[in-house]
Amino acid sequence: MNKTRVEFFSDGVFAIAITLLVLEIKVPESGNIATGLLNLWPSYLAYAVSFIVIGAIWINHHAMFDWIARIDHQLLLLNTFHLLFIAFLPFPTAVLAEAFHTSSGRDIATAFYAGTLTVIGVLVNAMWWHAASRRELLHEAVSPELARAIGKRFLLGPAGYSLATILAFVNPWLSIAMFIGLNVYFLWPRRPEVVARKSRAPRKSRT
Amino acid sequence: MNKTRVEFFSDGVFAIAITLLVLEIKVPESGNIATGLLNLWPSYLAYAVSFIVIGAIWINHHAMFDWIARIDHQLLLLNTFHLLFIAFLPFPTAVLAEAFHTSSGRDIATAFYAGTLTVIGVLVNAMWWHAASRRELLHEAVSPELARAIGKRFLLGPAGYSLATILAFVNPWLSIAMFIGLNVYFLWPRRPEVVARKSRAPRKSRT
Amino acid sequence: MNKTRVEFFSDGVFAIAITLLVLEIKVPESGNIATGLLNLWPSYLAYAVSFIVIGAIWINHHAMFDWIARIDHQLLLLNTFHLLFIAFLPFPTAVLAEAFHTSSGRDIATAFYAGTLTVIGVLVNAMWWHAASRRELLHEAVSPELARAIGKRFLLGPAGYSLATILAFVNPWLSIAMFIGLNVYFLWPRRPEVVARKSRAPRKSRT
Amino acid sequence: MNKTRVEFFSDGVFAIAITLLVLEIKVPESGNIATGLLNLWPSYLAYAVSFIVIGAIWINHHAMFDWIARIDHQLLLLNTFHLLFIAFLPFPTAVLAEAFHTSSGRDIATAFYAGTLTVIGVLVNAMWWHAASRRELLHEAVSPELARAIGKRFLLGPAGYSLATILAFVNPWLSIAMFIGLNVYFLWPRRPEVVARKSRAPRKSRT
Repeated sequence: MNKTRVEFFSDGVFAIAITLLVLEIKVPESGNIATGLLNLWPSYLAYAVSFIVIGAIWINHHAMFDWIARIDHQLLLLNTFHLLFIAFLPFPTAVLAEAFHTSSGRDIATAFYAGTLTVIGVLVNAMWWHAASRRELLHEAVSPELARAIGKRFLLGPAGYSLATILAFVNPWLSIAMFIGLNVYFLWPRRPEVVARKSRAPRKSRT
Repeated sequence: MNKTRVEFFSDGVFAIAITLLVLEIKVPESGNIATGLLNLWPSYLAYAVSFIVIGAIWINHHAMFDWIARIDHQLLLLNTFHLLFIAFLPFPTAVLAEAFHTSSGRDIATAFYAGTLTVIGVLVNAMWWHAASRRELLHEAVSPELARAIGKRFLLGPAGYSLATILAFVNPWLSIAMFIGLNVYFLWPRRPEVVARKSRAPRKSRT
Repeated sequence: MNKTRVEFFSDGVFAIAITLLVLEIKVPESGNIATGLLNLWPSYLAYAVSFIVIGAIWINHHAMFDWIARIDHQLLLLNTFHLLFIAFLPFPTAVLAEAFHTSSGRDIATAFYAGTLTVIGVLVNAMWWHAASRRELLHEAVSPELARAIGKRFLLGPAGYSLATILAFVNPWLSIAMFIGLNVYFLWPRRPEVVARKSRAPRKSRT
Repeated sequence: MNKTRVEFFSDGVFAIAITLLVLEIKVPESGNIATGLLNLWPSYLAYAVSFIVIGAIWINHHAMFDWIARIDHQLLLLNTFHLLFIAFLPFPTAVLAEAFHTSSGRDIATAFYAGTLTVIGVLVNAMWWHAASRRELLHEAVSPELARAIGKRFLLGPAGYSLATILAFVNPWLSIAMFIGLNVYFLWPRRPEVVARKSRAPRKSRT
C-alpha cells in the first residue's frame, strides 16, 4: 500500500470529520434570537473542544507518519480502525452538547466522550508500537532510543483519557478540563528536544 | 483521463462516504442517557460494519489501481457507476440500523444492504474484466495468469454478497455475519502469494 | 494562482457535492419497510440523475483543464461561480424528488432543476470562451480550430438545458429524459475525433 | 510540519465547508411549490454570500501561502484556529437565513455573522504578522516593503468586518452590503501592483 495515498485518505477523513462538527449545532427555533444564540454555549464549547481534539490528533498523525517510511498491512488496518473512531467523534460531541443543554446525564456523556478518546489513544499507540517493532517501517534516522521516547509520549494519551473517563463521574468539568489540557499539550507534537533534532533529516527528505 | 485525478476523486468519494456514516447516528432524544446510548447499538453496529465495508472496498480499489497503468473511457464510466453505489451506502446503512431499532423488516433491510453490496461487487468485477481484457491498460508486470488469479479473487465478492442477500430472508444475522466475514477477508487485499510477489515491481514504480 | 490547487479545490467540491446527494434520501418512517423503500423511487431516480450529471460535468471540467495551461484571475472567478452552482445541485435534486413523491409541482421542480443546469452550462461556456480568447491560457497544441470545435460542443449544454427548462412545463418526464440524454452524451467528453487526437500531447505532459 | 500537507488539509476544510452550506437550505414542506421556492430567497442569498466569502478567504489563503516558504508550529496553530472559524461559518449562515425568513432578530443575526468574519480577519492578520516577523518563514523574494504592503491590505478585513458588525444594529442590509463589498474586493487577492510583480518568482518555483 502506497504511503502517500494512505496519508491522503486519512487527511480526507480528518478534514471531513472536523468540518462536519458544525452540523450538530442547530439554529435556535424561535423566541428571542440573542437568548437562543447564548443558550447554545454547550454546542459552541463542544464544537471548539472537538475541533482542537481532532486538530491535535491530526498534527500528531502527521508527525508519526513523518517518522514512518513504509506501511505494511497491519499498520494499514490499525490506521483504518483509528479513523473509524476519528470519524465517530462528531457523535460523542453532539451527545456532550445535548447533555449540557438539558443538564442531565452530563457525567455519562462526558465519560462517553473521554472513552472514545481513550480508544483513539490506544489505537495511536498500537500503530506506533507496531511500526517501532518492525524497524524496516521506520526511517533510518529514527534510532531505537528516539522510537522509545516518542512511544512514551504517545502513552500519555490513553493514560490521561482513561483517567478523564473515570473523573467524569466525579466531576464532568474536571474531566473536560483534563482532556482539553491533554490536547493543548498534544498540539505541540515534537516537544521532546531529542525528537525535534533527530527527525529533521527524514522529514526533509519527504517533500 | 489522467489516472492520478481519477484516483484522487475516487479517494475523495470514499473518504466522504465513510465519514458521512456518523450523521445517521442520532442523539437520543430524552429520558435516561445511559439507556439511550445503549439502545443505539444497532446504529453503532451498522456504522462499524459500513466503515469496514467501505474501508475494505477502498483498499481493494487501491490494489486494483496499482495493477492498472492506464484508464480508458469505459473504465472511467465503470468507476463512476461504482462510486455511485459507494456514495449510496450510507442510506442502506441507515435503513439497516432503523430496522434493528424497531425490530421490524429486518430481513428486507438486510437484503437491501446486501443487494447494494452485490451491485458494487459486480461493478468491481466489471472494472477488472475490462482492464484485463485490454492488456495495454495493465502494468506489464501483470501476467495473464496473475490477471486471472486476481479476477477469481474479486469474483468472491458478488458471489458471497448475492448469497448473503438470499440468506437475509432466512436469518438476517447469518447474512450480516456473512458480509462482515467477506469484508474482513477483503481487508487483506493481496493474500494470493503470487499476487503479492509479482505486483511488487509496478507498485514501486508508481510512487 | 496555481493551476493544480484550483483543480484540487474543484475536485474536492465535486466529490463532496456528489457524495452529499445521499443525505437527501430519508429512511422511511414506519409501516411496511418494503413499501417504504419502493415508494422512495423518486429519491433514487433523483440521486442517480444528479450523480450522473455531476459526474459528467466533472469529467468535462477535467477535459477542459487538460487543454488549459494557465489560470488567470477571471478564469478563477468564473470557476468559483461555476462551483457555487455545482455545490447547489443537491438542493434542486431534493426539490425534484419531493415533487415526484407528493405528485405536486412536478413541472416547477423540473424547471428549477433544468434551470440550475442551464446556469452551470452558461458558466462552463464562459470559462472556455475566456480561455480561448486569451491564447496564452491554452496549451500550444490547442489550435484555434480545435478551440472552436471544443467551444461548439460545450454550447450544446446551455442550449439543451434551456430547452429542457421550457419543456418541463409541457411534460416533466420529457424534460428529465432530455437532460439525462445530454449528460449521457457528455459522459463521453472527447468524442470529436480531432479533439482526442490533437490534445494527446498536452495531456501527457501534465502528469 | 510539511507545508504541502497543511495546504492540503486547509483546502479540504475550505472545500467541505463551502459545500456543506447547501445542507442548510431545506426543501419547502408543502403548499404551492413556486411560492415555497421563492420564499426561500433569504437562504439563497445567505448561501451565495457565504460561498463568495469562503471562496474569497480561500483565494487569499492561497495567495498568502504562495509567499510563505516554511511553516513553524505557531503558524500551524494559528492556521488551525483560523480553520475552526471557517468550518463554523455554515452556522452563522443558517442563523442569518432563518432571521430573514422569520423577519425577527435580523440585527443580531447579521452582527453574529459579521462578528465571525471579524474573528477570521483577525486570525488571518495574526498569521501574516507572525510569518512576516520571522523572515525565514517567507520566500526571499518577499521584501520587507512588500510584506508590509500585503499586511496593510489584510488589515482591511477585520477593520471592515468590525465596522459591519456595529452597522448591523443600525441597518442589517447596510452591514450585509458592506461585507459583500469587502469580499468582492478580496476576490482580487493581488491587486497591489507591487505584490503581483514581485511574488511571481516564488510562486512559479512552487509547482
